[in-house]
Formats: sequence, C-alpha cells, structure tokens
Amino acid sequence: MAIPDEQIFPHATGAAAETVQKHQQPQDVIFYAGWFCPFVQRTWIVLEERGIPYQYKEVNPYKKEKHFLDINPKGLVPAIEYKGNALYESMILCEFLEDAFPEAIPRLYPSDAFERAYARIWIDYIAKSIVPAFFRLLQGQTEEKRKTALDDFVKALGAFADKVKGPYFLGDQFSLVDACIAPWVVREYIVVEHRGHSRDLAGVNWKVYADLLEKRPSVLKTGSEHYTEIYGRYLRDEAQSEAAKATRSGGVIP
Amino acid sequence: MAIPDEQIFPHATGAAAETVQKHQQPQDVIFYAGWFCPFVQRTWIVLEERGIPYQYKEVNPYKKEKHFLDINPKGLVPAIEYKGNALYESMILCEFLEDAFPEAIPRLYPSDAFERAYARIWIDYIAKSIVPAFFRLLQGQTEEKRKTALDDFVKALGAFADKVKGPYFLGDQFSLVDACIAPWVVREYIVVEHRGHSRDLAGVNWKVYADLLEKRPSVLKTGSEHYTEIYGRYLRDEAQSEAAKATRSGGVIP
Repeated sequence: MAIPDEQIFPHATGAAAETVQKHQQPQDVIFYAGWFCPFVQRTWIVLEERGIPYQYKEVNPYKKEKHFLDINPKGLVPAIEYKGNALYESMILCEFLEDAFPEAIPRLYPSDAFERAYARIWIDYIAKSIVPAFFRLLQGQTEEKRKTALDDFVKALGAFADKVKGPYFLGDQFSLVDACIAPWVVREYIVVEHRGHSRDLAGVNWKVYADLLEKRPSVLKTGSEHYTEIYGRYLRDEAQSEAAKATRSGGVIP
Repeated sequence: MAIPDEQIFPHATGAAAETVQKHQQPQDVIFYAGWFCPFVQRTWIVLEERGIPYQYKEVNPYKKEKHFLDINPKGLVPAIEYKGNALYESMILCEFLEDAFPEAIPRLYPSDAFERAYARIWIDYIAKSIVPAFFRLLQGQTEEKRKTALDDFVKALGAFADKVKGPYFLGDQFSLVDACIAPWVVREYIVVEHRGHSRDLAGVNWKVYADLLEKRPSVLKTGSEHYTEIYGRYLRDEAQSEAAKATRSGGVIP
C-alpha cells in the first residue's frame, strides 16, 4: 500500500522555510501554496521578484481547509485569494500579479506588445513540451518509456535553450519565461539521479542558462530540501497529484 | 487510401468568402488563416469584432509558401505577421491584438485585473476540457469511446454554461471568452449529426448561450459552408492536423 502523501514533510524546509516565516502577516494577497509543487513555485518566484506583499498559507492537498474549498472549489494550488475572491492556475496568477500590481518593480513582461506575445509563445512551449516530458520521464516505469521521455525532454530543453538571448531568456532582464521554467531547473536533479538525465545532454546553452537560473535569489528563496522524498512517489508512479494522474492516463495536465 | 486534405475546398465559402474578399489589401497585420480551422476562427472573430485592419491570406496546410515558413518555421495557422515578424497560437494572437491595438473599440478583456484573470481561467477551461472532448468525440471510432467522449463533452459544456452571466459569458459585453468558444458552437452541428449530441443535452443554459453566440455578426462573417466535408476526415479519424494527431495519440493539442 502506498504511503499517504499527507505524511511526507508537511512544510517547507531550507531557504523556503525562512521565506514562509517572513510571510505570515495578513495581506490583501493570500497565497495558497504547496511547498513542493513546481507550479506553486512559479507564482512564488514572481511574488518574491516583484516584492508584492503576500501572506503564505500552506495547503496540505489531502487535508484542505473548509475556507479554502469554499472560495476555490476545485481546491487547486497555487491559488490567490484577493479581497475575498479566489484565482488559480500558476501562469494566470503570474499574469494577474502583473496586471494588478503595475507599480511593483520590476515588471516581468516586456512593455512591447509583440515582445509580450513572443514571451507567451515560449511559456506555452514550456507548458506543452517541457513539463509533460518531465512528468513522463519521472513516472516512466519501463526502460522504453523512460528512453522516449528522456529523448523528448532533452530535445525540448535544447530547443528552448537555443532561443535564450542571454543571460536570461529575453535578454538582460529576468522575465515570466524564466519564472515559468525555473521550478523545473530546481527539480532537474531528480531525473539526473534517477533517470539517466544530465544537464549536458540538453546542450551547452541549456547548461549555462540552467546553472544561472538556479542561483537567482527568488529561486533560491522559494526552494526547499527533500524534493526527492516527495518525488519518490512519482518515480514509483504512485503520486496522486493532478499532474501525476494526467500523465498516467495520457491526459492533459490541468 | 485517404483523400489528401489539400483537394477539399481550398477556400472559404458562404459569408466568410465575402469577408476574405474585403481583406485583400496590404496592411500591417497579415492574418495567415485556414478557413475551416476553429483556432483560426477565434482570432478572425477578434479582428472583426474590433475592426482592426488586416490582410487575409489563406494557407493551404499541405502547400505552405516559402515566405510563410521562413517567418513561421512551424507553419501553424493561425499566424499573424506584424512588421516582418510572425506570431502564432490563437489565444496568444487574441491577447496580442488586445495589447497592440488598445485604441480599437471594443476591448475584449475587462479592464479590472481580477476580472481579466477570471476570464483567462475560463479560456483555459475551454482549452483543457471542452476542445479535447470535442475532438475525442469527433474522432472516436468505437461506441465506447464515443459514449465516454460525449459524456465528457456534455458535462464540460454544462459546467461552462452554468457560469454564463448572460447574455454573454462575462455579462453584457462580448469578450474573449465568447470568441474562444464560438468556433465550437459553429461546429457543434457536426457532432449533432454524426455523434448523437444535441444542444439540449448540455442543458438549457448552454442552449440559450450557444443559440445567441452563433448569431453574432463576427461569428457569422467568419463562418463557411462545407465544414462537414472537411470534418469527414475527422469522423473517420483520418485527419492529419496537429489537433487530430494529438487527439489520436492521446497527447496535448498544440
């Protein structure tokens, strides 16, 4: 029988634990999070990058509180409660923070409409090419499935990295494209340790970019230890998150 | 052997043919389109709703011109060429038109940041729940697959329709949410005729909303005849579009 997820490390550790401690006071933005979730980390990076005041609330996905479910019936994290109403979906939250806090510096989207659309194209690419390949690789239970997934993952990273203007994806400034991919850079070591991946496989452009991204303060401050323990359930294909279930059934990651 | 798609109705017909004729002059926005494609129709509806000057260029997906592939190597439609550079992905194009032509009235996103995020949540829902179910239903080759897909499709439409504020999704004003779903309202008759669907199955809210949406001038002006002939290849699961191939393999619609 699988160990229930709820018993594994219920709180952030390492640098993220300190960040959580600093964000316990009530604020207009209440950030409902799961410390281990890469989709959560995207939005968390944006909150930290832009210095937007927020209150961090850890949601145990297996013990959701009534208030959280009342405002957010699907119960997905990340979610933001803003003046009594809830929003969810990591990239929609990142866009919301751009729109709702225009005065927070830096903006993470270019001001030019064409450049913004270009950034969205690559964010869409991360969602449709890189993230699904990562989960297929993580959850692959046969040599053949892992080989195909690793090939897909490496190719997807390489194609993305070839578009990096440097040092960040769009050039000098850290942007939402970087925030969107960073959580997978942080978790890449799991597939290095367990699935035969290496940063070099995806090419030198990927290695240089990923090495830089994982040292970004906002990325470090939202990073925990113990990902391997959480991802052990993915490596055995026993995880029950929406992303894990979608990957298992061949469906769309919600 | 399958009939090559390229031989089936290479140009728009009906009301859409007139609209194409009116948009042949060079403009800053060059709209690369396939008259039959629902993703194309989304962006086309937005161009028409907002009165943005554009030049329409039909792309035969099996005979792509060199210039089009040069600026848009993936060769996907819809695409927009703007001052020599190309963008693609239907909803990214719709957002681009909002950002690049703020003076074009009406705007199709609410000005309030929270309301805009709420609209994006439901656009995401259309992409992840309604559209994949539609293609699974269209392409289902066994009774069991069709039954499951019809059930998914009807439930997805019903849940969406329950959130319609009326008469349009966000209330009085036609918005990007309506533009995003409208092409599937236009094509719903195919699964009515061939897959046992009916508008009533999804509930009265859906029926009232869909009946209204298909009468919207921008929707009518971008609609062709002969969808059934095109979709015959989908009904036999022989279509070679990216959406068709993704549906067949259980993958993510690009």
